[in-house]
Amino acid sequence: MFVENQWIKIKAPATVANMVCGFDILGFAVNNPYDEMEMRWMTRANNEPSIVIINIDEYQLPTDPEKNVAGAALLALLEEYEEKVGATKIKFEVKINKLIKPGSGVGSSAASSAGAVVGANYLLGTIFSKDDLVRFAMNGEKVASGVKHADNIAPCIFGGVTLVRSIFPLEVVALPSPQLHVTIVHPQIEVRTSDARSILRQQVLLKDAIRQWGNIAGLVAGLMKSDYDLIGRSLEDVIIEPVRSILIPGFDDLKKACKQAGALGGGISGSGPSIFMLSKTKEIALAVEKEMNQLYDGIGLPHHTYVTTINQGGVEVEE
Amino acid sequence: MFVENQWIKIKAPATVANMVCGFDILGFAVNNPYDEMEMRWMTRANNEPSIVIINIDEYQLPTDPEKNVAGAALLALLEEYEEKVGATKIKFEVKINKLIKPGSGVGSSAASSAGAVVGANYLLGTIFSKDDLVRFAMNGEKVASGVKHADNIAPCIFGGVTLVRSIFPLEVVALPSPQLHVTIVHPQIEVRTSDARSILRQQVLLKDAIRQWGNIAGLVAGLMKSDYDLIGRSLEDVIIEPVRSILIPGFDDLKKACKQAGALGGGISGSGPSIFMLSKTKEIALAVEKEMNQLYDGIGLPHHTYVTTINQGGVEVEE
Repeated sequence: MFVENQWIKIKAPATVANMVCGFDILGFAVNNPYDEMEMRWMTRANNEPSIVIINIDEYQLPTDPEKNVAGAALLALLEEYEEKVGATKIKFEVKINKLIKPGSGVGSSAASSAGAVVGANYLLGTIFSKDDLVRFAMNGEKVASGVKHADNIAPCIFGGVTLVRSIFPLEVVALPSPQLHVTIVHPQIEVRTSDARSILRQQVLLKDAIRQWGNIAGLVAGLMKSDYDLIGRSLEDVIIEPVRSILIPGFDDLKKACKQAGALGGGISGSGPSIFMLSKTKEIALAVEKEMNQLYDGIGLPHHTYVTTINQGGVEVEE
Repeated sequence: MFVENQWIKIKAPATVANMVCGFDILGFAVNNPYDEMEMRWMTRANNEPSIVIINIDEYQLPTDPEKNVAGAALLALLEEYEEKVGATKIKFEVKINKLIKPGSGVGSSAASSAGAVVGANYLLGTIFSKDDLVRFAMNGEKVASGVKHADNIAPCIFGGVTLVRSIFPLEVVALPSPQLHVTIVHPQIEVRTSDARSILRQQVLLKDAIRQWGNIAGLVAGLMKSDYDLIGRSLEDVIIEPVRSILIPGFDDLKKACKQAGALGGGISGSGPSIFMLSKTKEIALAVEKEMNQLYDGIGLPHHTYVTTINQGGVEVEE
């Protein structure tokens, strides 16, 4: 156990899920933006809650642990902790400073959930595996979107590029990847996850599915061989993107301009509205950012951009 | 150019296409069975054909170059050769001893096509790339099945496990793999490729496609990481096998028995009727063979088995 009452600092990275062809299975963490959190544990007095959430940002997210994504994740962790070690009097205090805007499509809820359980595990003496932590944090995703999914949680906790091969039972595979620069643009529009989900067709053509799985195999091989050209050729989504991209203004033009500026490829981050592009060098990533700014300035759509790299460590804890 | 009139010997391996979840994209070559061929070139006299096929096996396959798979592949190669170097007076003589039974589902036609073009390239002084050779040999597949496909040609020429990421334009990716033992059973029934193709549904459920691409990503990662457990868990096909396996007597029982005997997994080879299983050791591969023999002896179905390993070199040429 870590020292009672002493705060630790946590950095929980933003993540990109649905990595182009890898819908629902491939995602990665980035070094910027990230959520900042602080956590400590103390002995709980009778009738005290086991979790106290303190929001120190502007978003007025719920502080009731069952309605807060970090709280829901911690409740799942504490339940299994008690099964493991017997009844406890642990109380967690969690301060959350969200620097990842909720609803932007880069894993804002996942960062809070993942950050909280990684922090708690540190305080408890690292008794859970990363797979366990992903399972706990998925309860936060259920609060956020109604569905337990690991697309953002897995890369947030493992870092790097992750494959969720199977969700029940959970199996996360960390995939080695070469240095990749990431440019993200967040156009300030709302894409409801429920809308993004409901417009997907339930059936797909077998020939499209085959083309998609050729690209997925190519992308995994390209990442593991550090073959940038193969990565670029494999960054093609013939199933989800053609449907979902209609929800994002200027998507096709933006993608074309970014690729002409040298990006390997990219697509919708999560269910949008953010769009990400991967590049081999920082110079190209900056040129891609310029294209993004130009396009959205041109149509007068407010937006933020980030130029960053793939985060290799996942959630970080500092004493 | 190799010495005129002098014969070379060629060994062209059998191949397994549609590697479980990797329908239409993943395949591998095996060390047994293989076709034996001999080839030489000589200066063609006027009015002589450019290709002479001599079958020295029992199968009475056509010797007209346009109707013979090796002949069709060589015609494509010669056409591009003439574009490259101008009109030539090259004549190829090809002796073919098919040890891979036609129609068995382990790439019999691909072995003849691939063997012929690899041999011809050797005789001409290795002026074509492996990708070129795959393109030429696909013309043989068109003669055999009406469709240009590279599922068997690619592993036959490259050796090892190959990914055909895209067919037009052709892109073959060689995938590193750990030592794997292969058990193949060929039940002596006929499965027409056209039947195997026509029973497939043109549409698949998106949720099944997602499960399939999770497995494909897992299989590629497992092969490249030499992670046998991950390979085993990923060898699951929820789309093609449930439909096609009804054409193969005893399929489900056989697969279950083989996995109980320790096989990592396996499935239908190509479009059948052969079934293959992958194992970590030779002992397990032999135990798997025993299960196969027991099952097909039990229902009185004549069959052949092979216990072999993944072939890493592809078509071999010997002077």
